[in-house]
Amino acid sequence: MCRYLASGVAYGQNRSNMHILSADQFSQNELAELFNQVDELRKLDQSGKGRRALAGFHSGEQVCTLFYEPSTRTRLSFEMAAAKLGMGISSTECASLFSSAIKGETIEDTVRVLSEYGYAAIIIRSKEDGAVVRGAAASKVPVINAGDGMGEHPTQSLIDVYTIQRQFGRLNNLRVVMGGDLKHGRTVRSLSRLLAKYPGNHISYVSVPELQIGGDIKAVLKKSKTTFHETSDLYSVLPDTDVVYWTRLQKERLKNPEAHDTAGFVIDDQVLKKLPKKTIILHPLPRVDEIAMEVDQDPRARYFEQAGNGLYIRMALLDRIISQR
Amino acid sequence: MCRYLASGVAYGQNRSNMHILSADQFSQNELAELFNQVDELRKLDQSGKGRRALAGFHSGEQVCTLFYEPSTRTRLSFEMAAAKLGMGISSTECASLFSSAIKGETIEDTVRVLSEYGYAAIIIRSKEDGAVVRGAAASKVPVINAGDGMGEHPTQSLIDVYTIQRQFGRLNNLRVVMGGDLKHGRTVRSLSRLLAKYPGNHISYVSVPELQIGGDIKAVLKKSKTTFHETSDLYSVLPDTDVVYWTRLQKERLKNPEAHDTAGFVIDDQVLKKLPKKTIILHPLPRVDEIAMEVDQDPRARYFEQAGNGLYIRMALLDRIISQR
Amino acid sequence: MCRYLASGVAYGQNRSNMHILSADQFSQNELAELFNQVDELRKLDQSGKGRRALAGFHSGEQVCTLFYEPSTRTRLSFEMAAAKLGMGISSTECASLFSSAIKGETIEDTVRVLSEYGYAAIIIRSKEDGAVVRGAAASKVPVINAGDGMGEHPTQSLIDVYTIQRQFGRLNNLRVVMGGDLKHGRTVRSLSRLLAKYPGNHISYVSVPELQIGGDIKAVLKKSKTTFHETSDLYSVLPDTDVVYWTRLQKERLKNPEAHDTAGFVIDDQVLKKLPKKTIILHPLPRVDEIAMEVDQDPRARYFEQAGNGLYIRMALLDRIISQR
Repeated sequence: MCRYLASGVAYGQNRSNMHILSADQFSQNELAELFNQVDELRKLDQSGKGRRALAGFHSGEQVCTLFYEPSTRTRLSFEMAAAKLGMGISSTECASLFSSAIKGETIEDTVRVLSEYGYAAIIIRSKEDGAVVRGAAASKVPVINAGDGMGEHPTQSLIDVYTIQRQFGRLNNLRVVMGGDLKHGRTVRSLSRLLAKYPGNHISYVSVPELQIGGDIKAVLKKSKTTFHETSDLYSVLPDTDVVYWTRLQKERLKNPEAHDTAGFVIDDQVLKKLPKKTIILHPLPRVDEIAMEVDQDPRARYFEQAGNGLYIRMALLDRIISQR
Repeated sequence: MCRYLASGVAYGQNRSNMHILSADQFSQNELAELFNQVDELRKLDQSGKGRRALAGFHSGEQVCTLFYEPSTRTRLSFEMAAAKLGMGISSTECASLFSSAIKGETIEDTVRVLSEYGYAAIIIRSKEDGAVVRGAAASKVPVINAGDGMGEHPTQSLIDVYTIQRQFGRLNNLRVVMGGDLKHGRTVRSLSRLLAKYPGNHISYVSVPELQIGGDIKAVLKKSKTTFHETSDLYSVLPDTDVVYWTRLQKERLKNPEAHDTAGFVIDDQVLKKLPKKTIILHPLPRVDEIAMEVDQDPRARYFEQAGNGLYIRMALLDRIISQR
Repeated sequence: MCRYLASGVAYGQNRSNMHILSADQFSQNELAELFNQVDELRKLDQSGKGRRALAGFHSGEQVCTLFYEPSTRTRLSFEMAAAKLGMGISSTECASLFSSAIKGETIEDTVRVLSEYGYAAIIIRSKEDGAVVRGAAASKVPVINAGDGMGEHPTQSLIDVYTIQRQFGRLNNLRVVMGGDLKHGRTVRSLSRLLAKYPGNHISYVSVPELQIGGDIKAVLKKSKTTFHETSDLYSVLPDTDVVYWTRLQKERLKNPEAHDTAGFVIDDQVLKKLPKKTIILHPLPRVDEIAMEVDQDPRARYFEQAGNGLYIRMALLDRIISQR
C-alpha cells in the first residue's frame, strides 16, 4: 500500500505505477504483458469455473466511479469489470451536477475524502483537462483516468490498440486509415501516438482540411519515423488498408458546425465494396450516421466487438493496480 | 443462449420468450404458472434458509437498469428483485440526460454495446413508444420492458392481475371499476386487455366524458364478449364491485389540465361507506390526492401491498428469462 | 421487527430506537457505547480476518439511499459502510429530479412503498426540514436521517463529537472555537447542543455579528451552564483552545451574499502560528477557501481524518438499527 504524503504533493517513485493516467505510461513490454493478461481474463470469463475464480480475485473490495461528466458506456463497462472481479461499486453519474463541486470544492479535496473511505480504486471522468491528474495526486488509493476533457482517455486508447493487436497479432507494419474530426478527436490523437511507438506503420488521415490532425501529432510521427499522409478523398486510401478507424464529427466541440462540409465522409456499402477482405473497421462509439447501419452486418465491422473488449481491458487494469497496492 | 443475428433483425423463434416486452405475450397458462412461481418466491423469501437459497439462484450474474425516463419506484423494485436472486446491479437513473443519447446514438447501438458486456438481463425504461422493442431486437441478452411511453409497462400489468388473482383466487367473473384518466392511462388500458382474456368479467369505466377509455380497448372487450359500461357517477357503481382500480389524472400528459373537471373523482371516507367489505382498492401509484390519506388505514386499501407484490413479480420474471437463456 | 401501524401514525414505544433521526436521541451512555462500537469496527476493518468477519455481519441484506438533495460525500460514505457490513445498496442520487416527487407524491407514500420492498434500512436526505421524520413515520423499516434542510444531520454531528472524543479521551472541560456562518450552520448548532450535555465546556463563537449563533442555541447553553462568548476577532481566541471547528459561508443559503464581509475569517499559516500544539482543526467539508490549502499538511489539520471517521460511525449506526429490528 502506497503512503499518502500530502495534498498536492506527488507520490514519489511509485506514482507512475499506482495510477492509470495516460496510455503513454505503458512501455511496449508493459503493453504486451497487459494484453496477455486481457486474453487470460477473457478465457477465465468464458467458463463457469473461471468466472467463479474471477469473482474471488478482489472479493470484499469496493471501487468508486466519480464521473463529473456523464459517460454511461464507460462507467458501466468499468462497473461490470469490477463486478466480475468480485468487487462492489458505488457510483456518481454526474458529479458536476450533484456533488460538492457545485459548492466550489476542488477535485483534490473530493478525491482526498473519498480515498479516506478505503476504496480499492477511484475511477474518475472529468470535463476538464488535467483534472484527473490533480485528483490522483491527492488520493491515498489508485486512480484510473476514465477520460478528462480533450486530454487523455487511456482505457479507450488501450482498447483500440488491443483490438488491432488481437486481429493482426502485431502492432507494427500496419496501414491505418483514420477519419472524421481529427483536430478535436481525442481517440485518433492517442491512437496515433501509440502506433508511433512501433516501426513500419503508415497512417492515412482522412478529413476536411480545417479538421485535419494537429501539428503536435505530426511532430511525434516524424520523430518516430512513422509515415503518414493527409487527404480528403476516402476512396483513395481504401484499396490497401488494414484498419479503418472512423470517428464522428464531435459537433458539440465545434463553435460553428454548419461551416464544415462533412458529406462524403460516411462508411457505407459503397465503401465496403472497395475495402479489402482483411480490413477491420473500428469506431470508439457512439456512432451517429458516419457509419451506415447497413455496415453492421459486414464481418469487417468490429466496433461492437471493440466495445466489448473494453470490459477485459478494464478488468486487467483494475486487477493490476489493486494487486500491486 | 440465443444468438444475435444483426442490428434491427428480429430474433427468430426464440424472440417472444427471450424478452419481456408486453403483458400480452403471456398465455393464460403461462400467467398461472408465473403466479405460482411468484408465490413460491415469496414463501422462500420469508425464511432465513429460503433467502439464502434465493441468493444462490443467479449469484455472480449482473443486471443493468437503463432508464431513459426516471422511475425510482420501478427501478428500485427491479434492483431489489435482482439482489434477492444474488445478482449485482449497474444502473443509470436518467439516460436521456446522461448517456450517449444526447450525442445522437440510437437505442439499438446503446443496447447492443451494453449486451456485449455480458449482463444477464437489461431492464429498459423509455419515454418513447416502441423504443424498448427496438432496443431488444439489437440485444444479445434478455431485455425487460420497464415501461415505454404510452405503450407497454408489462410488469405493472402483471402486478395488477396478480394482486387480483391473489385476493379472489380467480381472474374471471369479476366486477371491476376503473377510474381516473382512462384515455391516457397506460395501466387501465393494459388491465382491460388482460381481463378480457377471462370470461364473465364486467368493467365499469368512471371518468369525465373527454377522458373515457379509448375505442381500441372497447373493440377488444367487444370481441371477447367482456361487458362494460361508462359513467361519470362513481357512486352508481360502488355497491356491487370486487375491485376498484383508481388512477390519477396524469397532468403531465395533458396539454390543458385546467380544462378538465376532475372534482368528485376522489376515493375518500364517503366512498368507503358505500363500498362492499369484499372490495379491494388498487392504484398503480404514485397517488396525489385522488385517494384521500384517510383511506390508507382501511383494510380494503391494498395499493401498498400491490406495490410490494411488484418485488416478487419482478423476481419471477428475472428468474424466468435468465434461467432459459 | 417493529410493526407498521398506519401512515402518519408514529410507532409506539420502539420508535425512538428504531430510527436515527436526531443526534439528540442518544443519551451520554448511549454515545459512549456507540463510540466504543465505532472503535471496534475500525479495529476489525484493519485486518483481513476482521474485514471478512464484517462482511458477514449483514450479508444478504439491502439498504436504500434515497437522496432528494444530492450529497455525494454522505451518500458514498453510507454506501461504503453498508458494503463493509456485507450489504447491497440501491441508490437515487437526486430523487427530487428523478422520482415520483415531481408528480406530487408525498415522502410518506414513497417511503412506505420502498419499505414494502424489504430494505434493511432506508437512508434519506431531504432539502426540507422535518421531511425525514415524516418519511420515517410511514416506514416499516428503520430510517436514517442523512440531513434534512436546516434541521438535523445526526451522523455528521456524531462524527464531530466522536473525532473530539477520540483525540482528547473526553467530551467535557474542553475549549472549543466555532467559526463561520453560525446563524445558518446546521453543524455548529448541533455540535453546540451536544457539547452542552457535558460539564465544563466553553465555546467561543467567531463570526460577523449578523451571522452569529442563534438565540435558541444560547438558551440551551445557558440552561446547561455551558459558558460561551461571541467575538469577531479570531486571533483573540487562538492561544487557549482545544478544538477549532471551522465552517464555510453557506452562500447558497444567503439572499444577499455580498452584504456579508467574510474576509479575515480564514484559517491559514498565520493562524497556525498562534495555535497551541494540542489543538485540532475540524471542518465538516466541503471547504472552499475558508481554510487555506497550506494548512492541510499541518498535523493539527484533522478534517480529512474527521471525514474518514464518518465511515465507521455510519457502520456502527447501521449495525445498531439493523441488529435490533
